[in-house]
Amino acid sequence: MPPSRRPPRRRPPRVPHDVADLSLASAGEARVDWADAQMPVLAQVRARFAREQPFAGVRIAASLHVTAETGNLVRTLQAGGGEVWIAAANPLSTQDEVAAALVVGDGAAVFARRRADRATVMAHQRAVAFAEPPGGPRPRRPGSGPTSVVTMDDGGDLLALWHGIRRAGEADDAGGDVTDDPPAHGLIGGTEETTAGALRLRAMADRGELTVPVLAVHEAETHRVVENRHGTGQSALDGILRATNVLLAGRTVVVLGYGSCGRGVAARARGMGAAVTICEIDPIRALEAKLEGYDVAPALEAAAAGDVFVTVTGNRDVLTAEHFRAMRDGAILANAGHFDVEISLADLASVADGPATEVRPLVERYVVDGRRLHLLAGGRVVNLAAAEGYPASVMDLSFTNQALAVEALVVDRERFAPGVHRVPQEMDAEMARLKLASLGIGIDMLSDRQAAYGRAWT
Amino acid sequence: MPPSRRPPRRRPPRVPHDVADLSLASAGEARVDWADAQMPVLAQVRARFAREQPFAGVRIAASLHVTAETGNLVRTLQAGGGEVWIAAANPLSTQDEVAAALVVGDGAAVFARRRADRATVMAHQRAVAFAEPPGGPRPRRPGSGPTSVVTMDDGGDLLALWHGIRRAGEADDAGGDVTDDPPAHGLIGGTEETTAGALRLRAMADRGELTVPVLAVHEAETHRVVENRHGTGQSALDGILRATNVLLAGRTVVVLGYGSCGRGVAARARGMGAAVTICEIDPIRALEAKLEGYDVAPALEAAAAGDVFVTVTGNRDVLTAEHFRAMRDGAILANAGHFDVEISLADLASVADGPATEVRPLVERYVVDGRRLHLLAGGRVVNLAAAEGYPASVMDLSFTNQALAVEALVVDRERFAPGVHRVPQEMDAEMARLKLASLGIGIDMLSDRQAAYGRAWT
Amino acid sequence: MPPSRRPPRRRPPRVPHDVADLSLASAGEARVDWADAQMPVLAQVRARFAREQPFAGVRIAASLHVTAETGNLVRTLQAGGGEVWIAAANPLSTQDEVAAALVVGDGAAVFARRRADRATVMAHQRAVAFAEPPGGPRPRRPGSGPTSVVTMDDGGDLLALWHGIRRAGEADDAGGDVTDDPPAHGLIGGTEETTAGALRLRAMADRGELTVPVLAVHEAETHRVVENRHGTGQSALDGILRATNVLLAGRTVVVLGYGSCGRGVAARARGMGAAVTICEIDPIRALEAKLEGYDVAPALEAAAAGDVFVTVTGNRDVLTAEHFRAMRDGAILANAGHFDVEISLADLASVADGPATEVRPLVERYVVDGRRLHLLAGGRVVNLAAAEGYPASVMDLSFTNQALAVEALVVDRERFAPGVHRVPQEMDAEMARLKLASLGIGIDMLSDRQAAYGRAWT
Amino acid sequence: MPPSRRPPRRRPPRVPHDVADLSLASAGEARVDWADAQMPVLAQVRARFAREQPFAGVRIAASLHVTAETGNLVRTLQAGGGEVWIAAANPLSTQDEVAAALVVGDGAAVFARRRADRATVMAHQRAVAFAEPPGGPRPRRPGSGPTSVVTMDDGGDLLALWHGIRRAGEADDAGGDVTDDPPAHGLIGGTEETTAGALRLRAMADRGELTVPVLAVHEAETHRVVENRHGTGQSALDGILRATNVLLAGRTVVVLGYGSCGRGVAARARGMGAAVTICEIDPIRALEAKLEGYDVAPALEAAAAGDVFVTVTGNRDVLTAEHFRAMRDGAILANAGHFDVEISLADLASVADGPATEVRPLVERYVVDGRRLHLLAGGRVVNLAAAEGYPASVMDLSFTNQALAVEALVVDRERFAPGVHRVPQEMDAEMARLKLASLGIGIDMLSDRQAAYGRAWT
Repeated sequence: MPPSRRPPRRRPPRVPHDVADLSLASAGEARVDWADAQMPVLAQVRARFAREQPFAGVRIAASLHVTAETGNLVRTLQAGGGEVWIAAANPLSTQDEVAAALVVGDGAAVFARRRADRATVMAHQRAVAFAEPPGGPRPRRPGSGPTSVVTMDDGGDLLALWHGIRRAGEADDAGGDVTDDPPAHGLIGGTEETTAGALRLRAMADRGELTVPVLAVHEAETHRVVENRHGTGQSALDGILRATNVLLAGRTVVVLGYGSCGRGVAARARGMGAAVTICEIDPIRALEAKLEGYDVAPALEAAAAGDVFVTVTGNRDVLTAEHFRAMRDGAILANAGHFDVEISLADLASVADGPATEVRPLVERYVVDGRRLHLLAGGRVVNLAAAEGYPASVMDLSFTNQALAVEALVVDRERFAPGVHRVPQEMDAEMARLKLASLGIGIDMLSDRQAAYGRAWT
Repeated sequence: MPPSRRPPRRRPPRVPHDVADLSLASAGEARVDWADAQMPVLAQVRARFAREQPFAGVRIAASLHVTAETGNLVRTLQAGGGEVWIAAANPLSTQDEVAAALVVGDGAAVFARRRADRATVMAHQRAVAFAEPPGGPRPRRPGSGPTSVVTMDDGGDLLALWHGIRRAGEADDAGGDVTDDPPAHGLIGGTEETTAGALRLRAMADRGELTVPVLAVHEAETHRVVENRHGTGQSALDGILRATNVLLAGRTVVVLGYGSCGRGVAARARGMGAAVTICEIDPIRALEAKLEGYDVAPALEAAAAGDVFVTVTGNRDVLTAEHFRAMRDGAILANAGHFDVEISLADLASVADGPATEVRPLVERYVVDGRRLHLLAGGRVVNLAAAEGYPASVMDLSFTNQALAVEALVVDRERFAPGVHRVPQEMDAEMARLKLASLGIGIDMLSDRQAAYGRAWT
Repeated sequence: MPPSRRPPRRRPPRVPHDVADLSLASAGEARVDWADAQMPVLAQVRARFAREQPFAGVRIAASLHVTAETGNLVRTLQAGGGEVWIAAANPLSTQDEVAAALVVGDGAAVFARRRADRATVMAHQRAVAFAEPPGGPRPRRPGSGPTSVVTMDDGGDLLALWHGIRRAGEADDAGGDVTDDPPAHGLIGGTEETTAGALRLRAMADRGELTVPVLAVHEAETHRVVENRHGTGQSALDGILRATNVLLAGRTVVVLGYGSCGRGVAARARGMGAAVTICEIDPIRALEAKLEGYDVAPALEAAAAGDVFVTVTGNRDVLTAEHFRAMRDGAILANAGHFDVEISLADLASVADGPATEVRPLVERYVVDGRRLHLLAGGRVVNLAAAEGYPASVMDLSFTNQALAVEALVVDRERFAPGVHRVPQEMDAEMARLKLASLGIGIDMLSDRQAAYGRAWT
Repeated sequence: MPPSRRPPRRRPPRVPHDVADLSLASAGEARVDWADAQMPVLAQVRARFAREQPFAGVRIAASLHVTAETGNLVRTLQAGGGEVWIAAANPLSTQDEVAAALVVGDGAAVFARRRADRATVMAHQRAVAFAEPPGGPRPRRPGSGPTSVVTMDDGGDLLALWHGIRRAGEADDAGGDVTDDPPAHGLIGGTEETTAGALRLRAMADRGELTVPVLAVHEAETHRVVENRHGTGQSALDGILRATNVLLAGRTVVVLGYGSCGRGVAARARGMGAAVTICEIDPIRALEAKLEGYDVAPALEAAAAGDVFVTVTGNRDVLTAEHFRAMRDGAILANAGHFDVEISLADLASVADGPATEVRPLVERYVVDGRRLHLLAGGRVVNLAAAEGYPASVMDLSFTNQALAVEALVVDRERFAPGVHRVPQEMDAEMARLKLASLGIGIDMLSDRQAAYGRAWT
């Protein structure tokens, strides 16, 4: 192979890894770089980490979606002096070119292959948890390398491994390299990204099994504001437009659920010229919606008047047989909730005349009493299934949150007792402040006199 | 007195009272009736009370603003079988014609005269607290009349009287009819409408002095949504337009403070065609504002760009000398916060060339470095000073809250221990439900299956 | 008279005038000055006029509303070297203190008294038209003073006088001083502010009677945008809030008429949190409304669903008996159209049970089938009757338009043939440009290359 | 070929045609049917045509984009009794499966193949213009078939053929079958869809060459409202989101051009939470934007502040070197105007460091002074290049317009003189009325009394 085929500055990667195809690296770098342009908050943190080196001597073991946005998180942790090992939390979301770029360009220990089977995924996670590449030699001599570890989880898998919880039912997959011995490096704590993972870890804590502190990053207020309202709001509509190319102006969009996600969907649907009807079981939220000028109605009444339906309640059976029977010809049904239980697929099949037909990609037509109902993405979350999920600038905050949480665990380690914690309020505020700064916005601070005035009231 | 002076159907009122002029009663009835047309929620409660008679045998002693809206609250409590005694919490807000109407038409024991002096106000409150008209005979024989009492406070005065706290510094005003003896009727509890009153009562509770439960009605979530965001939002702009008649379209309105009140002001200013800039010291709120499309800036930067400034922070010195010096010719300064400390009047006087001149009613011009700054209503809350405060439909919820709180104290009296409580969540929800019903709106309820699904997550 | 009663710098005015009370002058100056702070566009024109002196040797005879805003127009014309004579177009709108200020402070020849009788009004107009104060000596010797005249009309009265059209039916009022002789000064042309005046003058032109050019300033595009949409939009809602203090959030506001005024009302009602329903007979406008997210319905259907009704069609009988019978309890009826014919008062009286009762100032209650309907301001234009009409910044453009139109007639007098003309397009654009400049905004211009590209297509 | 491969109900089509693959017909029918669900206005017209048969004895020769929406137009014309021949106006937009479906299922004479070469396209148009399939036998015996013809053009090609204008410069392509003889069937008139086509036909009319009336359907007011504002507004943002997945909330979107398209883009960008800055050279439009609350700035000033730029002026060189040099890192550049001249690609290449790199499909990065600028879709119209162009419900009106225009030409043929006409106003209104009806909305009509009142003013 002629040397010109390989950039001269790149040596063969010596870092442990298992990725699909290293030759995809330059395509991966372009994607990571595009995402970087949308992630200015993390870039600010990265610059500070580069100066302060908070992660010197720390290994960071991450089980996350291996995407371009995550690539920038990896670079940020490395900039802070950390040694990063990363496995895919979900093999379906892995971007192989990004995995390659992180190995080749950044020297991260990446274990991720798109569509890997379950055994591989678990082997990858074990490799990352304990810095033990499957089948290969130990990456370093005893005594060298980081002696502290922080985990980053998307579902609690790494911490479960560390706490030896993996063995129940997983022995067959895991093979012979599972041991009961605690690893040599000291675990400081971990971060957790998901509601489900936090539930799992809180259950461990309740049983007295969790030995380290965990910061539940998704519970930050900043996260709620940015991800739910704006991330979900935009991407749900984006998914609906990509799937259908329907004109929203003049149509009636029914939003079922007026939590922070539903508010984001409703505000944007109105902003596109739609009349918006809100269905909500909480009367206070329903009143809020009404006072903001939305129509508010029970779902059955809305069913007869709507053109586009978006479920975003977090509950099940929001649209059922009675609603489908009431709908008008041409109605469009989309779900923006996490699980595909909000639109009852069983009911839809049972009231339809015959099986569904695909009329466009991701659009299935059911005929109910002679009227055509169009289900998007099989009732799965339309933001991801028909669009691309959260924009990079939303992930910017999520991953800044992650990076700051890891820092807090390392630098302030005495502060956190074992257990699952919300991120500290000042960290939440700091994230918002960094985000504002990235938009060129500064804000004022309380004067001493004002602070004293406020205290006089409390 | 010729019979033609008095409507034939009305006998001279035998109820104890002290009001300015009973002949104003019919004008007062028209006002109460107009307010009633805006208070459908309270009307629903009144209809139920009329059926259920929850206040049979209960005397309700109220110290509130005596206005047309309060008149409908009085009627509601009476409809439920209560005997109502009411004094003015603040003599400046008393509508004398309403006071007259409540005596003549409704038989309430009203003690309220507009602009009464302090001694009269206190005598009125004592009269109402203990059903003892000043100087007059006891209204009824021993053994007759209600034996239970509930207080309704706007500042904690009645409960202070009941707890004998009035004597410190008030002895001179109170004269000789103050006694240490507990009154014969049993005090069940009270409601409190204000933040300041709740602070005062909580301090009493902390000292172990509060012997009954108090429901802090202003802390209801419904209240926050309706009063702060919509009541304050609309009436602040209304006050600014009445004072100035300035066109908002195309102007820059700077809203200082992005709490629930500030959000209401900002949304309406935008809805009137203004560009809106938000100043906020809380970075998370500032970020929320930015993501909703507002400009966000430090106050000094906004000072140089704004046309109309609205302070609504709850803090002091929000606009000071440095801001005034930066402002453009023609700037308008309004405060929508409770106290007149948000715009520093001392600073404004100190930087101005000469004294202020009134250029329109409620508009004073200060000239600062040759530029004309216009202060509205002397920096007092513009909603009240230049407009009429909350619309009746806002008070509709506030007083429904009051009525339901009194009912809860009477009917559920075992439920509440002595101390200051938020209103129960189900009462909060019920209010929202009634308000929706008054707008012709029903909402769905969780199915059992959905409730079970939700529980599975928590 | 002690010197302290009169400011030392002021001599007794020697200019011809007839106003109510010269001692009101300083109060008037404050009002004119307040308006000036809202009229930056006119101020720019005034500054240019002061340099260029376009009106040297020109007398400007105006019949306009004598208000603070008009005061600034007078000052602008004077700054340009003009000699200004002004009469009240309508004695009800005259602000006596402004009339005094213009005489005392500015030396204008003002003939205006609030609530003057008809004969006085006509005498004032004649005085102004021909510079002949009633009953008094001629103001100057023959040969001195301006020799050219421009009229400014609000209804066409001055031009009618100049064309001798006044005599039919007005002889009795006019008395003996009417002559057929053409005045000595030369009439260059005039401006006209109203639709009705333009109709009258066009009829004169059609009969071949109009001997000079007239610029119909209200037909400027800028005027339409600013006055109709924003001036009417804001002041209509302002009038409704002042009259009722009703909370708009959560209510249904029905806007009847979706022309430029109706769009302004609808946008603001939505911006205040109302649900908005549009009634419109033009299907294209109705479709526009629907595509902007409004509900659209026939008036009878809307009647049953609305809380607040605003007519703004320019036509009659928009709300009639059938609509009143369909309305809900508590409905509010307001008219924002020019004439009080949009809400049929005859129908309202005929379907009501008994006469109306005033429940608040400017709010009359009619009871129809047991439901309370509230008519605002007797069906007269609510913007003026319950609020203050257009904001000064709206009049800023209207009067800039007037000032530039007078200038065009004087400077470009060869350009305009006798007849009624729209203002030239470049004057319209210039006004918009000045308004933008007053807001600190510059805009780009077409490059030569772009201009050529555009031409290639036409 | 086994019979099971072909649906038994379908015989081999005997209609003249030239399409890519008849076996795609059923996929095409699904697409046409999906579009039909979004085209209820055309469906109403189709139902009426089926009853009234306006096109009996008429051949309709169409040169249009052969898409699913056009399929519904073809069906509508056929329902009215017309014989439809259709060629592709542009071979790139042809949906081969729709072409097949129209032949197999509907018996239309379709001549359209995706990516056909120029000679084929011209042969197809000749075939359709004169009902002469290329190379094949004449489709019918003399004397049979329609004797009247109406053309439908998208660029004026068919009418140019009918007027013999094709020969200049096209002789080589056209081959030997071009004749000077006028065809046997009588041409009644035609419709034209594009601005460019209307210009071409008006030039023909000016030269006295146009022998029939042409209705320029794109000049309908309804068209302007629906297509420009709402069709372009939504699809431009849709294209930007599909290309970039950028979060609009909190970003500054700069819209260059505030015509009806720009207004649609701006309103939606604001509705997505963006701050919007307008650049416009017309001061009246700029003022309108400012009064609607938008920031307004010259393009160079906006260049330094924007995150996303959308050109929609219809002119060239709107963004040039000076703007690119002023932009911030990460800026996104999109064009929503018809031609790719609004963003100067030459300037962009000249100021960039090195060639562009593709960072996502349809996103090219240029580095200018170290800052990353992202050009979408190579500066081509982003609505079409990155999204799907107008929604079907927009085409619904466009094609209803076409169908009604053909009807007017046939039924009212005496009404229209040779030349290019706007569609009659009542047809415009009728379309809006049908669109409203399809949304379930009726509107009122003027009463006689109201009509008389209106006439009194004009």
